[in-house]
This record gives sequence, C-alpha cells and structure tokens, in this order.
Amino acid sequence: MKKEIVNIGLIGCGTVGMGVVKILQKNIGILEEKAGTRLRLTWICDKRKIPVQKYGVHAPQLTDDWRQLAHDPELDIVIELIGGYEPARTIVLESLKAGKHVATANKAMLAKYWGEVFTTAQKSHALVYFEASVGGGIPVIQGINEGLAGNHIEKIYGILNGTTNYVLTRMNTAGIGFSAALKEAQQAGFAEADPTFDIQGVDAAHKIVILASLASNGWVHLDDVYCEGIEDLDVWDVRFAQERFGLCVKLLGISRLSKKRHCTRVHPVFIPCAHPFAAVNHEYNAVFAHGDAAGDVMFYGKGAGQMSAASAVVSDMVYLARQAANGTAGQIPCVSYHEHQKLEAIPFHESKCRHYLRFTTVDKPGVLAKISGILSEAKISIASVSQEDPSLFEDDAKQGVRLVIVTHEALEGAVQSALKTINQLPVLKKKAVHIRIEELK
Amino acid sequence: MKKEIVNIGLIGCGTVGMGVVKILQKNIGILEEKAGTRLRLTWICDKRKIPVQKYGVHAPQLTDDWRQLAHDPELDIVIELIGGYEPARTIVLESLKAGKHVATANKAMLAKYWGEVFTTAQKSHALVYFEASVGGGIPVIQGINEGLAGNHIEKIYGILNGTTNYVLTRMNTAGIGFSAALKEAQQAGFAEADPTFDIQGVDAAHKIVILASLASNGWVHLDDVYCEGIEDLDVWDVRFAQERFGLCVKLLGISRLSKKRHCTRVHPVFIPCAHPFAAVNHEYNAVFAHGDAAGDVMFYGKGAGQMSAASAVVSDMVYLARQAANGTAGQIPCVSYHEHQKLEAIPFHESKCRHYLRFTTVDKPGVLAKISGILSEAKISIASVSQEDPSLFEDDAKQGVRLVIVTHEALEGAVQSALKTINQLPVLKKKAVHIRIEELK
Repeated sequence: MKKEIVNIGLIGCGTVGMGVVKILQKNIGILEEKAGTRLRLTWICDKRKIPVQKYGVHAPQLTDDWRQLAHDPELDIVIELIGGYEPARTIVLESLKAGKHVATANKAMLAKYWGEVFTTAQKSHALVYFEASVGGGIPVIQGINEGLAGNHIEKIYGILNGTTNYVLTRMNTAGIGFSAALKEAQQAGFAEADPTFDIQGVDAAHKIVILASLASNGWVHLDDVYCEGIEDLDVWDVRFAQERFGLCVKLLGISRLSKKRHCTRVHPVFIPCAHPFAAVNHEYNAVFAHGDAAGDVMFYGKGAGQMSAASAVVSDMVYLARQAANGTAGQIPCVSYHEHQKLEAIPFHESKCRHYLRFTTVDKPGVLAKISGILSEAKISIASVSQEDPSLFEDDAKQGVRLVIVTHEALEGAVQSALKTINQLPVLKKKAVHIRIEELK
Repeated sequence: MKKEIVNIGLIGCGTVGMGVVKILQKNIGILEEKAGTRLRLTWICDKRKIPVQKYGVHAPQLTDDWRQLAHDPELDIVIELIGGYEPARTIVLESLKAGKHVATANKAMLAKYWGEVFTTAQKSHALVYFEASVGGGIPVIQGINEGLAGNHIEKIYGILNGTTNYVLTRMNTAGIGFSAALKEAQQAGFAEADPTFDIQGVDAAHKIVILASLASNGWVHLDDVYCEGIEDLDVWDVRFAQERFGLCVKLLGISRLSKKRHCTRVHPVFIPCAHPFAAVNHEYNAVFAHGDAAGDVMFYGKGAGQMSAASAVVSDMVYLARQAANGTAGQIPCVSYHEHQKLEAIPFHESKCRHYLRFTTVDKPGVLAKISGILSEAKISIASVSQEDPSLFEDDAKQGVRLVIVTHEALEGAVQSALKTINQLPVLKKKAVHIRIEELK
C-alpha cells in the first residue's frame, strides 16, 4: 500500500537546514514527482525560533526537543543537521530504532560511529543516507554506492576539504605562504575563525573514513588513519616542485582497498600538474574512485556552501521518501556493512610511494655524500638530486643550502627512519621537509 | 511479496555483453547484496554462438530470436546491447509492453525515440535505464537523475566522444594536424576504421540529447541540435589560441535549459586551459551539470571500453533488479518525461558566446579596416586583434597573412552573416575560420 504523503522532520535548522527549506519550497514539483509521493515538512527542531512562516510550505510544528520527532508515529524521515558527536549520535540511533529513516550530513559522527549506526539501521529495517557528509553537493555517495555497484573499488582518494584546498590553491598559483593564504581564505569566507580541524586534516580524515567504509562494505576506523595537516608546508617547496618537476600540492585523503585490508591516510601530496585533480581549485572538492570494471571515475563540485549541501540532503530525502512511500525501505540496507567482516589496517609505514625530501644544510663538502649514504643504507633509491644556489630564491643565503632529493618508490617506514637519522646530523640546519608524491595512477 | 530471484536476459552479446557476463561472474556477491535478491542470467540472445559455458554462472538458454525473451513470462529484465535503431527500438518497446524492465546502452535509439520509449515505459509500468548510453562507466545518468534530484539543471555540457577527444588531445598537446592525430587514434584503438559518426559530432549529439532530455524532464529533439564536427580544424589555430590566449580546443555538447526552452548544440569550442575540462584528455569523457542548488558538478571517467560500459550496464541491472524484486518497479517512472510539456528549441543563431575568427588575407593595406568595418556594422564588438608575421609559423608566407580577431560576446547569427559577407571579399584567400569560445562559467 503506497503512502500518499511522506512526513519529514528537520533537526537543526541552521544554514544548511534553511537551504533545505528553500529547495523544498522552490522545487517541490520535481521533488514530489521524483519521490512519487507528496512530501511534507511536519517538524522543525531547533533551539532558536526559526521564522518558518517565511519559507514553510506546510507550516511545520516547531520544537526544541528532538524526542518529539523521533517518537512521532506519523513521521517517516528525520534529517539530522546539528553536527558534532552528541546528541547527534543519540538522535540518529533513537530515530532509527523508532523506525524513522535518517538523512544526515554529519561526517564526524558517521566516521566515529559507522558500525553502530549501520548495525542499528539494519536491525531496525531503517535507512541512513548521508550524501551531504562528503563533497557537499557532489553526488559521490550515491555514485559510489549505486553507480559503481558492479565494481570492487580498489582505490579511492579525494580533495575533501574546501578550506585547505583554498589555501593550497593560493600557495600553488600565487606563490604565497601558508599564513597569508589562510588569511585570504578567511577573508573569502572559506575558512573559519578557528580552522584547526580543517588545517590539521581531521575533517578530511572523517570524509575518507566514510568513503573508504562505503567502498569496502566494511568500516575503516578513524584511529587507523594516518593524518598530517598542511600547517607546516613551506611555499618554497611548493614553488620549487612546480617549477622543477611540474608538481603541485594538494591535501588528499587516500585509501587503498582490498577485500580484507586497507591503507588509509590524509596528508599533503605532490601530484602531477597535468592530473585532473590539479585543476580542482579553491573551495572545490573532488573524489576519484578506481573500480575493477569502470576504471577511474571522478566526481567534482563545490564541497561546501548552503545550497550545495542542501542539494545533497534533498537528494537523500527524495531517495528515502520514495522507499518510505513504497513501504520497501529497509528491505535492503542503504549501505552494505558487515559487522563480522573485519577490515585489517595496513600500517602506514608499510605503504609505498615516491618522496620529496628537502634538506637545509650548512655549505660544506661531504654533506650530499653523508645524506645519500644514509638513504642508500635504508634501501631508498634516489631518482633526482638538486642542490640550489640559495641566491636564486628570495630569502637569503644565511638560511643554508637547500638540497632536494626525490626518491623512487620507497617504503614509508624506511624513509621515516632514514630522516630520523639525517635530522640528527650536525650539518642539518633545520628538520628535513618530507612530502609524499602520488602519481595517482 | 519479495521475489527471491530476478531473471535477466541479454540481447546482443558482443564486447560489452561479454563484459557484463564477466562482472556477473566475478562480483556476483556484492551485486546480489546490493540488489537484495538473487540475479540469474537466464537468456542470451545473439546471432553468434556464444561460448557461455566458459562464463555462465547459471548456464543461460541461448537463442537468436529476441521474442523468446520478450515473451518469457519468467523474465524480469531485458538488457539490450545490439545498438542501432532497429530492431533495437522494437525490442525495447515490445519488452516494455510485455512488462519487462529494460537496461540499454543504445544512445542512437534513445536520442531518436526518447518520447516513444518513455511513454511506453510509463504506460507499461516498466522501467528503462541507460547508464551506459553516455560516458561509459561514469555514473552520470544516475548522478543527474538521483543525485541532483533537488535541482533544476540550468546548463549541461560534456566531452562526450572518446574518439574526437583523443584526436583533439593530440592536436592540443602534440601540435599535430587532424589527419595525423586521427591516424594515431586509430592505431591506439580509439577510433574506428570509419570514424565518420564520431568525427562529425553525431555520436556526441545523441549523447547531449539524452543528457538534456533527462535534465529537462522533456525531450530535446535531435533535429533541433546544431552539429558541427572537428574535421575542418586546422592545427595552426589550435596552437595559436593556446599560445596567445591560453585556450585549448574540445568538442563539446552543450545544452542550456530553462523550464520551457533549450538551446542545444555540438561543435568544437575553445575553452580556458585552466578549466577542469582541459585536463580531460584522450579517451576520457566528462560531463558538467549546473544545478540551481548544487552549482557546478562534474563527472569524469572512461567514455568507452568493454568493462567500463559493462560496469554501467550492471549498475542499471542492480537498480532494476532491486525494484523488480520489491515489486515496486514502475510505480514511479525512472525518468520524468511529460509528453505534453513541450520544450521549445531556441534557434542556434540566437545563442551568444565569444568567437575566434581567423582570416587569411592578401598582404595589402585596408584589409583590417574592411573586415573590422563589416563586424562593426553587424554590432560585433572586437576584444582583440592579432596580425601574425607569417614567418613565425612553419608553413610559408605564400599562404597569406593571418588575421585573428576575438570578439566579445556576440550573437551567433550576426557572426555568421558577417562572415558570409567577409568570405566574399576579394582580399580573402580562404574561407574564414570560426571557432566559438566558451568560458564554461
């Protein structure tokens, strides 16, 4: 028996929530046609008084108690947009247990409680969808989950954070330093007053956990994700790598997946300037997935912003409403998650790639021999060496001689341990710079 | 009542069909989990004897008569992979009328019979999905139809043909001429022996018709699509525009959409080298959609090839099987198509963009004044003029003087009529070159 009306409740009506209300009002015709049912926003839960009469098509009830939504027997779908771990987690779990379907944009909560959320959903025959949690308006969750349904995803990586991508774009294209670029991002509205979570890669880590868990049908734990931010990047290396090697810097979330293992990490990466990722600039995000059948597939779009995030929430809502109306929701879980199927984390130090190493040394004979000797002992093969005349660059020669070594593919662990030894050499004037290079092939 | 097994029949078991069989065999576990039902390939229809025992998980029945599939009451899904207009159209229509759901990769048939196919599907409460018809393994159909469900799509454009993109990539990056580049594409297996349909833009036109019809919930008729191929492109212009203006050439399908009107066309376009489309090279395809909420979204991947096309077909199959199993298929049409809702075509000559015009003239005073006078009379505003010293380029001066004019935004019709006049001037040594410039903003 088909439901004529699907009732929707919105918990957290801030910027994105208001965007959802706006889309509901503006595009209700196509939404109801695609959902195959009428859509009614029956509840808005927020601590503030939301001036819904301005927007509301159906004049929803207002409350500041989410339990009223979770326990309203007429409600079909809960949209959780408050963010953070709690009470978001409790709201989602309680709503699922009460048989509501949930759309959420909450990447932090999903990354931390993936197992609990999807186990609860399966047990409750309810659905959780989360298009807005990664990549704003880019339909990447559905693209991977449905569009690449016939594939084993072997690799997934992404430019997942708009703030850091804005900063790195300015460093890449304007050659300005980290602090100046961050200030610009803040002025342009693409970085928060306290951008710590973004800059340190934590936000990107949440998102790669979601993508990798989705792609693997397992759960990639946040604790198993190596995470390094962009705050220590020196624009000297950015400019040098671009001019010499045609590389540009991006903060990537990267996950390599096999049926039983994964290696997942977030850190700054030099990538070839000719790669499509190099053209993903400013606040834009992009995700590459490599499927065993489809090959490389990329999704690109605005990673944040009121309407793009709202667009993603609304696409989840249509998807859930269609199934709620048909009464088929929950017959098949939205996301395949197998509690018993453990995914083993390959330690970061066992991963392999090429490495960009920059040493700032005193100007004495024998330095190169010493450093290259240590690398050689660690079985790290050198692909190229450049020793720069310090006067070529703006800053002055007192800083020392810059020696840049690019390795062939080498084990992370071997490189880290060699750098530890090298950093203790008295000829080093500063800690070595270490940036991984990914060909993204 | 849920179906435990969904029966699938494959019509046309060539390269892509074999790919589908391979994926079914390799990834059956995840496919059945995502479909929520068992999947059984019960029929293969092909004129050739297909050695299925090598592949077949369930040893399907073989036939060379597609009617056996369309009229098998046990069959749920027909996969049509024979291509061409007929008998593909009849197969699809008959199958739908018999209540089968259809997955097809047939862009030519869909573009030509969109209205008939989707009207029949709606009347029969059956579904047609066609992920493989555009962009190979890129999940762009689902991305637009589901992922951007909350949006009005205002603009959609794409690099939709791998053959032409391979040729243009070689012209852009290696600076070689059209014929040499085409030969390379043929040798690399990315152009057919007779590549006419690709080179003339017909294949891209089919695909932009599908995308624009899907995005508009209407039907963009092939007859209303202006179509110009790449065979007349001169590499001189490609190199010049790149060096002088930072532009590169692509063959694009472009559709601008409002609720009641569309302007849809296929032709070579100069785009900024910094645009992500400029990094879509060789056999890769990409589609940009601009939604009123999500903003710009791009989908990228391999546009052709056995496994990528098969990946798309399989994702349709999973989608259809899930609904067939639930018994809900056809309650809501896969695609919104309103027969009565006419979409008016804006004539191509009313469209506006910037134009690159190159004139090859005799070396006499007054030529520039004459040409710019004609443009000015037609109210075409000039943005830049370059008159090249012929000795700068390889070919010799006898060819005449090359005068390149880039206009501000101007009406297509005005430019065409001005060019008609200019082409009749006795000072012209060759027909003017006319390439449109799109900023893709």
